[in-house]
Amino acid sequence: MATIFTKIANGEIPSYKVAEDENFFAFLDINPLTEGHTLVIPKHTEADYIFDLDDQTYAGLCAFAAKVAKAIKKAIPCKRVGVAVLGMEVPHTHIHLVPLQSEKDMLFSNPKKKLTPEQFASIAARIASEF
Amino acid sequence: MATIFTKIANGEIPSYKVAEDENFFAFLDINPLTEGHTLVIPKHTEADYIFDLDDQTYAGLCAFAAKVAKAIKKAIPCKRVGVAVLGMEVPHTHIHLVPLQSEKDMLFSNPKKKLTPEQFASIAARIASEF
Repeated sequence: MATIFTKIANGEIPSYKVAEDENFFAFLDINPLTEGHTLVIPKHTEADYIFDLDDQTYAGLCAFAAKVAKAIKKAIPCKRVGVAVLGMEVPHTHIHLVPLQSEKDMLFSNPKKKLTPEQFASIAARIASEF
Repeated sequence: MATIFTKIANGEIPSYKVAEDENFFAFLDINPLTEGHTLVIPKHTEADYIFDLDDQTYAGLCAFAAKVAKAIKKAIPCKRVGVAVLGMEVPHTHIHLVPLQSEKDMLFSNPKKKLTPEQFASIAARIASEF
């Protein structure tokens, strides 16, 4: 059965899309640590664990994530964009890209930001325009 | 001036080395979140921010980190190896690879493990033997 992330990449479940190419998809985390917190996924594999990806998909995912991170840095005021792969909540490889003012912004135990649909849409559009 | 991580890669400052090739170096974090917590760095650039690396160095670092993560997974009992790049503490790009039993193991606010030099050496040797 398709994971929720595959359904998002296919457009069956709506998301705030940030970037997409043939093989990868990026969209806003709806429980963000900070404004602009983005998830990057491969579209054509549901491998649960990033280091189980084949070499080509892994390399492509890393390169795509770097492009997205650069767009986030241009669009969202932050010192840098942090990276995390934990991946025990949704069984589909995903990379978290989190705009950081300080390292503490990366603590997944922090309360999540509450944003309106209009705010999410605006953030996604700003990042997309820099991609 | 060389960063502390460049001095570690050059052998000027001792470390518990896990893996090395021509361009990259991996060693145990001496303030580990969990046993086997490893740092992966490029040897020939001190770029402070991972997304400032040139494309070739970035791709090489990602590929090397995956090899190290696979060795950690074989050597250290864990569900998977988590990845984090925060990088505000030492101004030299580094990737954290953290053996995880649960996502909570990745919280950088957790108290760090206290290990003896003998324990560090044993862990490094176990990972190195799987690399």
